[in-house]
Amino acid sequence: MTGPRYTSLVESLPANVPFVGPEEQERARGAPFAARLGANESLFGPSPKALAAIRAEAEEVWKYGDPTSHDLRAALADHMGVAVENVLVGEGIDGLLGNLVRLLVAPGDAVVTSDGAYPTFNYHVAGFGGALQKVPYRDDREDLGALISRAREVDAKLIYYANPDNPMGTCARGADVLAALDDLPEGCLLCLDEAYVEFAPEGTAAEVPADDPRVIRMRTFSKAYGMAGARIGYAVAAADLIKSFDKIRNHFGMNRMAQAGALAALHDADWLAHVQAEVARARDEIARIAGENGLRAIPSATNFVAVDCGRDGDFARAVLAALVARGVFVRMPFVIPQDRCIRISCGRADDLAVLAKALPEALAEARG
Amino acid sequence: MTGPRYTSLVESLPANVPFVGPEEQERARGAPFAARLGANESLFGPSPKALAAIRAEAEEVWKYGDPTSHDLRAALADHMGVAVENVLVGEGIDGLLGNLVRLLVAPGDAVVTSDGAYPTFNYHVAGFGGALQKVPYRDDREDLGALISRAREVDAKLIYYANPDNPMGTCARGADVLAALDDLPEGCLLCLDEAYVEFAPEGTAAEVPADDPRVIRMRTFSKAYGMAGARIGYAVAAADLIKSFDKIRNHFGMNRMAQAGALAALHDADWLAHVQAEVARARDEIARIAGENGLRAIPSATNFVAVDCGRDGDFARAVLAALVARGVFVRMPFVIPQDRCIRISCGRADDLAVLAKALPEALAEARG
Repeated sequence: MTGPRYTSLVESLPANVPFVGPEEQERARGAPFAARLGANESLFGPSPKALAAIRAEAEEVWKYGDPTSHDLRAALADHMGVAVENVLVGEGIDGLLGNLVRLLVAPGDAVVTSDGAYPTFNYHVAGFGGALQKVPYRDDREDLGALISRAREVDAKLIYYANPDNPMGTCARGADVLAALDDLPEGCLLCLDEAYVEFAPEGTAAEVPADDPRVIRMRTFSKAYGMAGARIGYAVAAADLIKSFDKIRNHFGMNRMAQAGALAALHDADWLAHVQAEVARARDEIARIAGENGLRAIPSATNFVAVDCGRDGDFARAVLAALVARGVFVRMPFVIPQDRCIRISCGRADDLAVLAKALPEALAEARG
Repeated sequence: MTGPRYTSLVESLPANVPFVGPEEQERARGAPFAARLGANESLFGPSPKALAAIRAEAEEVWKYGDPTSHDLRAALADHMGVAVENVLVGEGIDGLLGNLVRLLVAPGDAVVTSDGAYPTFNYHVAGFGGALQKVPYRDDREDLGALISRAREVDAKLIYYANPDNPMGTCARGADVLAALDDLPEGCLLCLDEAYVEFAPEGTAAEVPADDPRVIRMRTFSKAYGMAGARIGYAVAAADLIKSFDKIRNHFGMNRMAQAGALAALHDADWLAHVQAEVARARDEIARIAGENGLRAIPSATNFVAVDCGRDGDFARAVLAALVARGVFVRMPFVIPQDRCIRISCGRADDLAVLAKALPEALAEARG
C-alpha cells in the first residue's frame, strides 16, 4: 500500500514545522513562562464589552457564523469610511494573506517583501510556489522605494509591506506611502499590513481611496483589540478584489464568538484609548529597562520594542536564550543586521518587572 | 490603473457566491426564521461544560491559540484509540477539506465524489483546479463501489465519501467500508467524512487502522457536539499524511475558545448521550409529521431527515420555498432524483411544532 500522491509543489515544500508557539516552548522547558512577551499579543486584554459579547454569543455557538459577517462588515465599513463592498472579514491577517497569495500567485510568479519581514507571508508565498524576492531593510526600516523598484525589475504581482513594521517597530508616514503608489508598476498589488497601526503616531495610516485597485490594506483584532485567540482580521480594498476572495475563501470559516466580540470591540473606543495609553507607557518602561542595562531601544510605533543588544546576532540569540531560560518569552528578528535585537512585547507592570529582573542576568550570562 | 493580476485558475472560477447562510435569507425576507432547521446544526446546543470552558477561556482571548492544539489532540488520540501523530485539529471539516485538496490536487488531477454530495468539497476541488468526476447515488445511498471503480478509470488521487451521508442521511456499515478499501487503486486516498457518525447505529464508524495510508477520516464538533459556530474539527490518518498538513496549514489559525470548548465537550459523554437521545426522538417526530402529511421520511443515521415530497424536484423546491416563507429554514438536495426531498434538521419540540404547523400549508401551496 502506497500513500497519497501529493502535488509536486507540496512535495517540494520543507517538512519542518515553521512556527513554534509559546505553549510548545513551555512544554519543552517544563514550566510556564513568567512573562509572555514574545508574540505581540495585548497583555492588557480585550475590551470588557468584547468579552461580555463573546460570552453572550457562546450561547449561540451551535449555529454557524454568518458567512458574510454582515454586521461586523457594516461596522468596519463605517469605521474605515468605505463601502461594505470594500471590506472583507477573515480568519486573522494570516488567513487573509493566505487567500490573497492564492488569488494572485501561481508557481513561479514573483513576489517581493523585505528580508526579515513577516515570515507567515513568506510561508504562504512558498506554499503557492511563488518566487519570493527579498529587499534589505534600510536603517531598520522597510524600504518601500526599494520594494517597488525590485517589483518592477522582476515583474512582481504582489508586494508585502508592513507599516508599522514588524519586527523592528518602525513606521513611515501614510502620506509617503500614498505618494509612493504612483511608482508601483502596473499589475502589481501592494499588500499594506497595518496590523499595528492603532499604536502608531497620527498620520501613519495611509488614507488610500477605497477603490484604488493598487492596494489592499489589512488590519486585525489580534493586537490593539486584544483578541489574538479569536482569529479575526479584515481587509480593505477595491470592491472587485474583495469580491474575488469569495471564489476561494472558506465561506463558513468564521467563528461566531469572534464576530460578536470584534463588533463590540470596535465600538469601545474608550478601551482602545486605554490600551494605547498602556502600550505607550510600556514602551517607555521597556526603553528605560534597556537603557539601565546599557542597551538602546529602537523607537516603536507598535506594541513591542526592538532592543538593540549592541553586538551581533549570536550575542542577541544568547541573550534571548538566557531570557527564555528565566521564564521570559521573547522573540527576535531573523536576519542580519536586525538580528542584533530582541523583540519585547509591551506588558503590564508585573510582566515588565519580570523582564527588568531577568535582563541583567541574561546579559551577564550572554557576555560570560 | 489596472487591477491585480489573478492566477489563470482564479480567473476561471465562477464569480457567484456559492453559499448563502440563513442570516442572509433572514435579511432578504425581513424577518428571522421561527425554526432554524436547514444547516444540520445541533439545536440541543453544546455541553454546558463546553459552554463553561468557552466562557472561561474567553478571559485568555488575548493569547493566540496553541498552534499544535496539544491538549485537544492528545484527548482526541485517546478518544479515537490512535497516536497523537495520527490526529490533526483544524478549522472545521470545511477547513480540513480545503487543505486536503490543496495537498493532493493540482490543476487537471482527477477527484471523485457522489453527484449531490457535499458541495463544499466540490468547491475546494474546483478552487484548486481539480477535474471532478461525479458518480450517481444508488437507492439514495452513496455508492462506494462505483466511486472506487470510477477512481480507477480516471486515475483519481482522491475520493470523497461521507458515511453517514449528507444530504440523504443514509449510511453503510463500517465493516463494508473497510472491506472496500482493498479495491482502492494504488495512490488514491479515500476521504471518509464521518461528520454525522455520532448519530449513526453502532458499527457505522469504519475501524480503519491508524496507519493505513489509504484513508483519512474527518470528524467535527459542529454536529453532535453542538459547536458549529466555533469552527473546529479533526482528521485521523497515517502520521505521514497528518504531518504533511504542516506544510500548508495556517498554524496559528485555531480559535482558542474553540480548542477549550472542544476539549470539555469531548469529556462530557453524558451530554453526547443526551443529544443522541434527543436527535433520535426528533427523527421519529419528523417522520411522524411527514407521515401525517402523506410523505415518507427516509430512515436517517444523522441529525437530519430527508423527507420525500413524492413528486419531482420542482415540487420539492416549491414546498421548500413555502416553508421558508413560513419561517422554517430548511434546505434540500441539489440533484435528481434526490431533489424530490427536502432536508430537515432535528429540532427541539418547539421547532418541530413550527414545522408541523407549516408543512401542511406549504404542501397545499405547492400543490397549487
